[in-house]
Amino acid sequence: MTATSTPTPAWGATAPESGLAPLAIERRALRDEDVAIDIAFCGVCHSDLHAARNDWGRTKYPFVPGHEIVGTVRAVGAGVTRFAPGNRVAIGTIVDSCRKCDACADDEEQYCREGVTGTYNSTDRIDGSPTYGGYSKAIVVAEPYVLKLPDCLDMARAAPLLCAGITMYSPLKNWNVGPGSKVGVIGLGGLGHMGVKFAKALGAEVTMITTSPEKGADAQKLGADHVLVSTDKAAMRAASRSFDFLLDTIPVAHDVTRYLFLLDRKGTLCIVGAIDMLPSFHSGLLLGGQKAVAGSGVGGIAQTQEMLDLCAEKGIHAECDVIPIAEINAAFERMEKADVKYRFVIDMATL
Amino acid sequence: MTATSTPTPAWGATAPESGLAPLAIERRALRDEDVAIDIAFCGVCHSDLHAARNDWGRTKYPFVPGHEIVGTVRAVGAGVTRFAPGNRVAIGTIVDSCRKCDACADDEEQYCREGVTGTYNSTDRIDGSPTYGGYSKAIVVAEPYVLKLPDCLDMARAAPLLCAGITMYSPLKNWNVGPGSKVGVIGLGGLGHMGVKFAKALGAEVTMITTSPEKGADAQKLGADHVLVSTDKAAMRAASRSFDFLLDTIPVAHDVTRYLFLLDRKGTLCIVGAIDMLPSFHSGLLLGGQKAVAGSGVGGIAQTQEMLDLCAEKGIHAECDVIPIAEINAAFERMEKADVKYRFVIDMATL
Repeated sequence: MTATSTPTPAWGATAPESGLAPLAIERRALRDEDVAIDIAFCGVCHSDLHAARNDWGRTKYPFVPGHEIVGTVRAVGAGVTRFAPGNRVAIGTIVDSCRKCDACADDEEQYCREGVTGTYNSTDRIDGSPTYGGYSKAIVVAEPYVLKLPDCLDMARAAPLLCAGITMYSPLKNWNVGPGSKVGVIGLGGLGHMGVKFAKALGAEVTMITTSPEKGADAQKLGADHVLVSTDKAAMRAASRSFDFLLDTIPVAHDVTRYLFLLDRKGTLCIVGAIDMLPSFHSGLLLGGQKAVAGSGVGGIAQTQEMLDLCAEKGIHAECDVIPIAEINAAFERMEKADVKYRFVIDMATL
Repeated sequence: MTATSTPTPAWGATAPESGLAPLAIERRALRDEDVAIDIAFCGVCHSDLHAARNDWGRTKYPFVPGHEIVGTVRAVGAGVTRFAPGNRVAIGTIVDSCRKCDACADDEEQYCREGVTGTYNSTDRIDGSPTYGGYSKAIVVAEPYVLKLPDCLDMARAAPLLCAGITMYSPLKNWNVGPGSKVGVIGLGGLGHMGVKFAKALGAEVTMITTSPEKGADAQKLGADHVLVSTDKAAMRAASRSFDFLLDTIPVAHDVTRYLFLLDRKGTLCIVGAIDMLPSFHSGLLLGGQKAVAGSGVGGIAQTQEMLDLCAEKGIHAECDVIPIAEINAAFERMEKADVKYRFVIDMATL
């Protein structure tokens, strides 16, 4: 299939080998700006499980999760200039936005005033069709939302960069973490392990803060300089007021009090894991040192590309278990028990 | 009395006219770096009342409150170079710090690693004597902690700048508020009215956020561009995601949820009033836009001087009721009921 000008027959319809053919054939005909991608691997994000189970009450069925997508361009629309068939590409959590608000103009499409079009469980801005994610053979995405996957990155191990990776990279960059920064990464899972790698890559002194000494040792293998066991009261006291930035990857609701004591003046604790009620804490922990509790989601398209390019330069990948699609339900269960180091990635050749 | 070299008889002992003579004569002999100050006016801060009542369980008696002090230099120690008798000066909340930690080196003495010496209810770092505040005829403070009071500032109306003023100015500066910034000041009292004035002086577009339309009108007289009545649900909804920075001056514990909806991406709500447990709120309000809840206390000495100089340049004063010392208990009661526009200042000539 080659580039075409105006809408052609739905390209997905020409992929009868797809296990998700009933969905794929519903996909739109190639628009001028569209890039059609054969998916090679898709990471398994905790959000996928939340959405699949409708934990947030917003899931529309039929539903296809997956927003950590890597693959190869199969075809492009007539107006596409940056991609050609055969190119290695990646798709993250965003496949469209209004493209005209201040956030979009500032390369922060994730905060688009009209709301982003999510890679799954969202609605196409042009024809109103549902968006389906990367647990699939293929996907079609508008060129501005397609990322270049550098040649030197391993496809499977690059997939989790598209959500877990950028979720860690964006706050580290936006809070100016660099040489001289003292960063603590709280929790070692899919997010935390990327937090350790990126904080190190940006030049910070990195401490893994965990309840588990074993996880501490694992974090050191990934590059952490120090380990702080958060149940060790003496160690926590000794570490008080010693961090500039804390990346809090704990995935469930939790009291941040003990961590706020660790912040140095003007320090920030950034929540990236728990989307839940934040238990009450004392404002004096913020006033006494001009500190902040912040939150962060994913980054914009330009920042995601910047992250991928840094990964290529520094040889950064996610650590993952590659699984066949048939094992996805078992993987969801293991993910819930944090029984994975550190991310599952589905090999889409098994679909 | 003139400058002396080594310790002389306690200078306070030569001030028998002082109504607080029993305290004043306990004050130290002039050290080389000391500046002895005749107090003209002292602002009445809510902290004074908290401390006087031992609300925070830390008050040591005898106790003299007051950390919004303006006056005139009476005498200086032998090593003092920046001040001479007759100079107009001011003292805020800090009268000493370790002078060697990174915070002190960065002109952020308020966050001194060893803890500041407060203007009252604290302990002198050299002789261990208690520090007594500005509800008094006089005070002795080491030169590095003495501020120059520009000639064009009215003494009485300058007093509240030393705590209320800098508490507002410091976060506005540290969060880079300037032309183009959209700032909301929540609450119109001693702090809030200075927040409006400083945010305007720094070039921001300023909205008074209040439960009271009357206070909104008052804020506009002080320079606020807009008023947002926080009990007006439609107005609050219309204002969602429209502020870069919120200065939250509410003096009691309160839920920040309704205000977090007002923050635009990367916005910060900064708590400066309530020192209390912060009720639970949803972390999604932070994650969806990389937002933060922060806190801030006073600024350092250099920043306080910068603020006084800006006040001189722009003609900024606090709005206040000048009272004789005999009315202080009534003033405390009125302050608790927010029955003052906007700060009491004691005329120390009445002592």
